[in-house]
Amino acid sequence: MIRLDAAAAGFAQAFTALVDARRESSADVTRDVAAIVADVRQHGEAAVAELTLRLDRHDLAETGWGIEPATCAAAYDALEPGLRTALDLAAARIRAYHERQKPVDSDWRDEAGVRLGARWSAVDAAGLYVPGGRAAYPSSLLMNAIPAKVAGVRRLAMVTPTPDGQINPLVLAAAHLAGVDEVWRIGGAQAVAALAYGAGPIAPVDVVTGPGNAWVAEAKRQLYGVVGIDMVAGPSEIVVVADAANDPEWIAADLLSQAEHDTVTQSILFTDDAVFADAVAAAVERQLDTLATGTVARQAWEANGAIVTVASLAEAMPLVDRLAPEHLQLAVDDPDTLFARVRHAGSVFLGRHTPEAIGDYVAGPNHVLPTGRRARFASGLSVLDFMKRTSFLGLDETALAELGPATIALAEAEGLPAHARSVALRLRTNR
Amino acid sequence: MIRLDAAAAGFAQAFTALVDARRESSADVTRDVAAIVADVRQHGEAAVAELTLRLDRHDLAETGWGIEPATCAAAYDALEPGLRTALDLAAARIRAYHERQKPVDSDWRDEAGVRLGARWSAVDAAGLYVPGGRAAYPSSLLMNAIPAKVAGVRRLAMVTPTPDGQINPLVLAAAHLAGVDEVWRIGGAQAVAALAYGAGPIAPVDVVTGPGNAWVAEAKRQLYGVVGIDMVAGPSEIVVVADAANDPEWIAADLLSQAEHDTVTQSILFTDDAVFADAVAAAVERQLDTLATGTVARQAWEANGAIVTVASLAEAMPLVDRLAPEHLQLAVDDPDTLFARVRHAGSVFLGRHTPEAIGDYVAGPNHVLPTGRRARFASGLSVLDFMKRTSFLGLDETALAELGPATIALAEAEGLPAHARSVALRLRTNR
Repeated sequence: MIRLDAAAAGFAQAFTALVDARRESSADVTRDVAAIVADVRQHGEAAVAELTLRLDRHDLAETGWGIEPATCAAAYDALEPGLRTALDLAAARIRAYHERQKPVDSDWRDEAGVRLGARWSAVDAAGLYVPGGRAAYPSSLLMNAIPAKVAGVRRLAMVTPTPDGQINPLVLAAAHLAGVDEVWRIGGAQAVAALAYGAGPIAPVDVVTGPGNAWVAEAKRQLYGVVGIDMVAGPSEIVVVADAANDPEWIAADLLSQAEHDTVTQSILFTDDAVFADAVAAAVERQLDTLATGTVARQAWEANGAIVTVASLAEAMPLVDRLAPEHLQLAVDDPDTLFARVRHAGSVFLGRHTPEAIGDYVAGPNHVLPTGRRARFASGLSVLDFMKRTSFLGLDETALAELGPATIALAEAEGLPAHARSVALRLRTNR
Repeated sequence: MIRLDAAAAGFAQAFTALVDARRESSADVTRDVAAIVADVRQHGEAAVAELTLRLDRHDLAETGWGIEPATCAAAYDALEPGLRTALDLAAARIRAYHERQKPVDSDWRDEAGVRLGARWSAVDAAGLYVPGGRAAYPSSLLMNAIPAKVAGVRRLAMVTPTPDGQINPLVLAAAHLAGVDEVWRIGGAQAVAALAYGAGPIAPVDVVTGPGNAWVAEAKRQLYGVVGIDMVAGPSEIVVVADAANDPEWIAADLLSQAEHDTVTQSILFTDDAVFADAVAAAVERQLDTLATGTVARQAWEANGAIVTVASLAEAMPLVDRLAPEHLQLAVDDPDTLFARVRHAGSVFLGRHTPEAIGDYVAGPNHVLPTGRRARFASGLSVLDFMKRTSFLGLDETALAELGPATIALAEAEGLPAHARSVALRLRTNR
């Protein structure tokens, strides 16, 4: 963890280093992933089976490729009732939030008599990556699957690795709840390639979303264009802007809720009170000692954590914009004043009683958010990621007479005579 | 050009071959582009200058990197008046269409007392690639620049190659009209990398859009994630669905208006009348002989053109969906009935008096559209490509009391105790 003071000499340079810090895996995964993708494209089923045997240590010919809907339904029914209620609440609230994202079609006629508009429709099929192992989060499944279903996607195919054949029942329960249509027990770059190109029993999809490790992220990047993808995901981060009126323990827990995800995550506190900063730092240390995820969280906090002291919280906001954080908590009495100054952030958590964890699970907005400064240009996952827009136009003779001559002039200037001719032929009155 | 009959034996196979035909450049540009991108990332200004000298044959130290706004304004003023009026009309109509795409912010409180919403904002800076040489289209510049300006982008930096130092005055005029803020005379993969990372006098941007050759397209693909991009563009295509009541000459010109762009473009006619099909094929041959772009158009038509005869036009629509064409003309009296059956298309041109060329220039909808079957999942360029959405939520003590327990249950089930603690600390009444 580094401590920075915006008033200190050398701050500009130190903060720039913080902004530019690359927390990406240093392993060169690009080449490995390219080989896997090419292998799956060429050999399909056989490649996926071989890679799964080698990397996940189970034989798809024995375990089967798919997990039956009935198995998912049974996993849901077997949930501890409190957990099932929590999952139900999360699903209902996520659905309600995303319903509001559904775009509206348009169809109008302008003053030139030209009919214009745009029509939205869902993709036919979406693929959903769900990580296995310690990052197997049923909440992520809901966050990816529900927007797809709200968009109207008819076929939602999920892939999830089952290392050593081990299935995570929580994930299956969430798949049932979210209305996932197919569950395939494969993972890694090979699973992304199988979704994009099809492999064995898996038909190709149009869009692939969902979190994953560096291999999965790189596979999505390489297959972008073959399929649509949600975004290039990287290590995630939280920025908390807090004044001294907060309980340091609350803020420490908020910072650690990001740190416990992964050793490459980043947690940054901006505060206008150096004594409060010390109190939070001490609370983090105390909480780390009692946290089951303390080892990971400590590593993340020590390597990437930061506490920045500023003269006023308003002064922090341009610095926050440079970080363009995935998550931004504004733990003050009047968060709107600060929020009005925010230009780049994935999701913003307003006020002292809105810890980021609420947004991870049940609030409703999507928790799949742009990471690694990408909130400068990218948005959280939404219904729009599973839809596409078809524009349309229609002219009658009168409208064509009005727009035709300009079209001909521009086509000729661009050296495209067939373009000009397609209009000129229609304009001729003496045919 | 191939002729297919949907009723003939072997049609399914032949049509699948048409759908799957790869028209991408076979050259392996991936490696070349990766080297250029790495070079620009590492050596910035010097790399761009060296590549420009080598590939575009002019010395940036002599010609200067930028073109002054005054030069663009002068080019606009010097336009032939008819052409200037045409360009003005195009810009005004494109602006009017895209104004309607501006998203609406939301901010509401739900029944649990949770404040929820989403706020849209423009990216800070966008980069616009404008090809040089024969594909230097002022219309493309308008189609890329105007949505960015409508979105509210403050800094719009355009790159365009000036091979041998030659500047295209039409492009400069369009840049002036569209409100481009910076014009840089560089092109190719190195220009895309310069926009993404910054180089010399060029500051980095957040989003890069615009058409280009295979190198430019691959550079955008490789830099996706460092910046946002509009889409992966490939060879473009038109599908015309026409009955026998059309003038074959009109339809022939429509097919050729796509073919004349490039030898890898594809033009496909679906018709329910074999005699009409013959007439169109004959008209294409006649028109090719008198077309200044005949050499390119003939090559495209002969290699990739197709005429498909179907029993009824309704029967054509599922086939059209499999092609997911960039452009779809429905040249019939009642295009809406057919349009209602279309699931995948970039832009649809309704009725006999709506040649695709109208959409290329002045109608208003964007002509930057998903190619190569990508209309299955992608949309045309829009204002949204230059904006991002920040979601937000805010809870008070009451709302947190309602959503907190479910959050704790889910966080504990996912093995994330700091998440649970950040909520539990706030729920404690006895602190």
